[in-house]
Amino acid sequence: MEGFFQAESVAVVGVSNSPGNLGRFMAANLMEFQYQGYIHLVGPRGGAFFGHRIHRSVSDIDGRVDLATVLVPAPAVPGVLRECGEKGIGRVVVQSAGFRELGEDRAGLEEEVLKILEEYGMRMIGPNCLGVINRRNGLAVPFLPLKAGVPVGRVSVISQSGGVGATIINALEAENIGLSKFASIGNKLDVDEVDLLRYLVQDEETEIIYCYLEGISDGRKLMEVICGSKKTIIVHKSNNGRTGSAIARSHSASLSTDDLVVESALAQCGAIRVREIHQAMDCLKAFLLPAIRGNRLAVMSRSGGHAVITADAVEEYDFRLPAYPDEFIRFVQEHSRASVISFQNPLDLGDIYDVDLYAVLVEKTLARDDIDGMVFIHNYQGLFNVEESRALAIKLGGLLSTYRKPIAACIYTTKSELDDLNRKIDYPLFGDPREGVRALATVRDAATRRPLMLSSSRPENVDLKTAGSILDAMPPGPIPADKAAEVLAAYRIPLVPWKMVENLQDALHCANELGYPVVLKTARIDVIHKSDIGGVYLDIQDQPSLESAFRQLMQAGPPIMIQKMVPGGLEWLVGGRQDGNFGPVVVTGPGGIYVEVLRETVIRVGPVSTEEAGRMLDQCRGSVLMSGLRSRPSLDRTTLVDVLVRISWLLHDFPRVTEVDLNPVGVFEKGCLALDWRAFIGED
Amino acid sequence: MEGFFQAESVAVVGVSNSPGNLGRFMAANLMEFQYQGYIHLVGPRGGAFFGHRIHRSVSDIDGRVDLATVLVPAPAVPGVLRECGEKGIGRVVVQSAGFRELGEDRAGLEEEVLKILEEYGMRMIGPNCLGVINRRNGLAVPFLPLKAGVPVGRVSVISQSGGVGATIINALEAENIGLSKFASIGNKLDVDEVDLLRYLVQDEETEIIYCYLEGISDGRKLMEVICGSKKTIIVHKSNNGRTGSAIARSHSASLSTDDLVVESALAQCGAIRVREIHQAMDCLKAFLLPAIRGNRLAVMSRSGGHAVITADAVEEYDFRLPAYPDEFIRFVQEHSRASVISFQNPLDLGDIYDVDLYAVLVEKTLARDDIDGMVFIHNYQGLFNVEESRALAIKLGGLLSTYRKPIAACIYTTKSELDDLNRKIDYPLFGDPREGVRALATVRDAATRRPLMLSSSRPENVDLKTAGSILDAMPPGPIPADKAAEVLAAYRIPLVPWKMVENLQDALHCANELGYPVVLKTARIDVIHKSDIGGVYLDIQDQPSLESAFRQLMQAGPPIMIQKMVPGGLEWLVGGRQDGNFGPVVVTGPGGIYVEVLRETVIRVGPVSTEEAGRMLDQCRGSVLMSGLRSRPSLDRTTLVDVLVRISWLLHDFPRVTEVDLNPVGVFEKGCLALDWRAFIGED
Repeated sequence: MEGFFQAESVAVVGVSNSPGNLGRFMAANLMEFQYQGYIHLVGPRGGAFFGHRIHRSVSDIDGRVDLATVLVPAPAVPGVLRECGEKGIGRVVVQSAGFRELGEDRAGLEEEVLKILEEYGMRMIGPNCLGVINRRNGLAVPFLPLKAGVPVGRVSVISQSGGVGATIINALEAENIGLSKFASIGNKLDVDEVDLLRYLVQDEETEIIYCYLEGISDGRKLMEVICGSKKTIIVHKSNNGRTGSAIARSHSASLSTDDLVVESALAQCGAIRVREIHQAMDCLKAFLLPAIRGNRLAVMSRSGGHAVITADAVEEYDFRLPAYPDEFIRFVQEHSRASVISFQNPLDLGDIYDVDLYAVLVEKTLARDDIDGMVFIHNYQGLFNVEESRALAIKLGGLLSTYRKPIAACIYTTKSELDDLNRKIDYPLFGDPREGVRALATVRDAATRRPLMLSSSRPENVDLKTAGSILDAMPPGPIPADKAAEVLAAYRIPLVPWKMVENLQDALHCANELGYPVVLKTARIDVIHKSDIGGVYLDIQDQPSLESAFRQLMQAGPPIMIQKMVPGGLEWLVGGRQDGNFGPVVVTGPGGIYVEVLRETVIRVGPVSTEEAGRMLDQCRGSVLMSGLRSRPSLDRTTLVDVLVRISWLLHDFPRVTEVDLNPVGVFEKGCLALDWRAFIGED
Repeated sequence: MEGFFQAESVAVVGVSNSPGNLGRFMAANLMEFQYQGYIHLVGPRGGAFFGHRIHRSVSDIDGRVDLATVLVPAPAVPGVLRECGEKGIGRVVVQSAGFRELGEDRAGLEEEVLKILEEYGMRMIGPNCLGVINRRNGLAVPFLPLKAGVPVGRVSVISQSGGVGATIINALEAENIGLSKFASIGNKLDVDEVDLLRYLVQDEETEIIYCYLEGISDGRKLMEVICGSKKTIIVHKSNNGRTGSAIARSHSASLSTDDLVVESALAQCGAIRVREIHQAMDCLKAFLLPAIRGNRLAVMSRSGGHAVITADAVEEYDFRLPAYPDEFIRFVQEHSRASVISFQNPLDLGDIYDVDLYAVLVEKTLARDDIDGMVFIHNYQGLFNVEESRALAIKLGGLLSTYRKPIAACIYTTKSELDDLNRKIDYPLFGDPREGVRALATVRDAATRRPLMLSSSRPENVDLKTAGSILDAMPPGPIPADKAAEVLAAYRIPLVPWKMVENLQDALHCANELGYPVVLKTARIDVIHKSDIGGVYLDIQDQPSLESAFRQLMQAGPPIMIQKMVPGGLEWLVGGRQDGNFGPVVVTGPGGIYVEVLRETVIRVGPVSTEEAGRMLDQCRGSVLMSGLRSRPSLDRTTLVDVLVRISWLLHDFPRVTEVDLNPVGVFEKGCLALDWRAFIGED
């Protein structure tokens, strides 16, 4: 990827002097950003632009070219790429639209492009993208005219959409955050977000990565890169619903994936998931500050009201507010003007008119061992205390680097004064103390979360061979209940004792063997909610009841299953399926009727380790029901965790199994038992 | 209140020429905002300022004075107020701090002030406040120097905190929203938010009210004013937790109230509750646009990515996206440049380079009967399409007023260009399409919600006399279970059959009368969670079990209660208490063990009507368990609603009853039964 950002010479293909030609903006951006390499312009009509000759073809260029950036009509792209290949250009950015995003009939054009890339060993970003920027060397080839206003910074951006990418650059400028590298990746025909992330996580000029995605190319690889990186990776994923999906397909050729899976997968691998640019900017600001290493904040505010607002946020986001030391309070009191304020943490500075003193108070506080970070709110209207306030803002920047502790600073003033101020300081300001506190909490929580890699050790005693021989013989569709039970048993998943019964005599015999009470239920594979159709008879106590139940069930036809009735367990759900982007995912939560009531399903990409499965249960509020609440007995969480792990491996080992559902699993004081189960083989 | 905002002459008390004098800023603001009335300055040292003589006393002023604004040390305030009274000044704003917010020892000073106000029939805003502004007549007396940058607008602001108030004014300017009237109310010793709201809801220059509060003076009056008003009232309430409360007490003398009660009460009366200024600004913007009258949006975006983001938001906030008509699509296609985009709703304008055409497309769309509002996203970098984009923005404003439908418009450009643009248009822009869609949803939902006044008709067959005679005789503390049962019975709340038993013989006799199975439980008033201490024996089937249970319970001492065992109901919670600000509140939600698991308590200020109580149950997700889900029987919601209504009246009728708890109430197919109850008399 290095070649895309460190190219020392660029060919801009698609430039002409006709009005409305967009290629010129690529060249203009290279000028605006003061590109430090050689620029070659190419366009079939020739001419000149910015004093450069417009070559009629790539082959007319003299000398080495590292990167070509191409904006020509889609059908002309393959020809241009061949020329680039012949010229020995190793990297191309294709901005042209008109590929798969217009419909599947354009897939042929994409295949042709891929073939050419392979033939010449070229790598391509695009098509249907805005281009790339390296803010440091001035390589900037978007076809949208930009101003080089965004400061050089430590944040790199990957954006699937060019328009959103441009908005992100605007926001990085407006919020005084800055930019290192930028890539708009469009249809991701060759280079995708994983390629770029792998580059950026080892790029020394990049500290934080902000990734806007509409589709995920390979969920598991994405997770692997994020999980293996020490850098903060913020993922802004849109295209979450049915409507967005239709637009995204026609815009960046992306299919949507279940957003619950995306949300879970990103949390699992340690990414910070955001849904709005504003939210992303707050996270970026907090991660650019020195990292917060604990939970103890000191708050100072020139306005009592903002102190109240901050105190609410501190409590909401679980920070602590250690008291200011007595000596410090005495010092503050000595400098207080009218003594019309009582002093505590948050500290209301409203009665201290000497703004120069504020930096002294901040420094005294940052120096304390029992303070991990600060929230500082200042307020001046641009008419009064202006010089002192500017000096204060600059001093806060110095204190940040001296003490290596974060200050979430809010400075309220007029808009124009704030713009000026932002240009003078090299750290970001927050728009609201709540936003500052929330962002500090995100940093704190990210530091304490320790993402786990996907599990690589299969649980013990899995009989892969038996499971495989049953599943391989299975046609697509629902798996018969007895076969599913055998597969589950091969994975050592505990099932309630069961038998298939063919006739009444059989049923009576099995009931005697299992011992009353028993359960009789339909085992028809086309029935999803058995109880909805009266297909389940629970708690059958004796032979006459069993006879009557059997006769009723036979009306709906065979097969019929008999089970031992095991009452009293907590009903839980364990299931999973194959996700198009992320592969096997495992799902758990309160089961039975509470699936609907609590709607608390927790998801992980599998296979999961015991530790990860334990985290899944921790995440369900309903799991307090297992913890011995209100003198109830504690239930066997350990076995339930093991069931989760085994189901995740079953889905991993057999991708043909597209769905498994154990609902409910009865969780008892000792052990668990799957009381009902369903599994499904997908179309090959 | 009119007198505070329409005063034709103002005395500014507390002005001197000494450096750091804050009184001068009050005068300076009157100049800056071009006050249209007479200004009189007062300060003991005399002198002149802005060419005005500084009178040594209020009594030295010649001619009528309508309003005095006072910033002198707190102990001097009573003297100044007397002077004002003698001068016949009817309205005073006291900015001075140093009253109750410093501690209860200053309460005497406040009482003195109140006495003077009463003596002279004056009304006062403050003390400890920033002052008032009327943007239209230039009456602006905050002691913080302001620039008159905020446009004249239709939003009026009440802010308890001066500092937050100033920030709100900055935000109204930055977001191009504008201001009508502003009042910072500080300690609210005389005039409070209810007085000002009553004025502003009938003020013709005010369309929307934004109210920042740290404490609520009279919750029920506040609800009454909001419920009775047709104007949009946005309430930003802080001071929600323990920490904030300590600060708020010392800042604006406000005590916190349970935030769940505040949240519920504000929703109940139809206020829009916000927690951040940014969120408030988005709501203000949406409410200032023509009201959305339905659920159907058309989206147009110059960037496909923003179209995807908007489509997600549209789905998340339950809007619909009707298709663009074929004729319209053909028109768009004719003007499409490279045909590299497929057209649908959201409409991606990225391929239409003629910006002038955008307004045509918007107008065609607003004219449609099946469209209730639009989201429009434009993108220009300030280097290209500048004139066309500015013209477009102005045209959108015209279309808004022509078609009386809202357009949530986002325009992405450089910061300086956006600032310029904002000055040219008279409608607000959104920073993100998600924020726009969310704000439109707030308007839509507010229009469909119909707040109900507190109930004024007591349910039938309440025996007030019996309840009163029991409760009046009760000392503070827990009410004995039998007495509580008699009070509940007087309110016709259905209880499980019960008896108090004194000895074993008694217990056996009662069990025979009630019929086995029975429940035996401790009735000790000091026990809150009976089952936690082994104080409940359920499902006692026979005499020997009863004997054993009785002996066990007697170890913990009498009294003991026996009840009929009534299994199989859904366990629900009905309760209530007296809130310091809002009076009787009633609480409901899933009961028993699910109080902890679901944490789904719904609150209302009482007394509630049957309709309001029904809404409470609708709001509990757990209430689906009553609705006949998964072939379970439907349960008797109607009786449960009636219990809620009756409990709310009990708390209303007897404020000495500070807590009632029916937990659980068993809800059956027919009827409900309170299975356990507790009630508490507060200290008088």
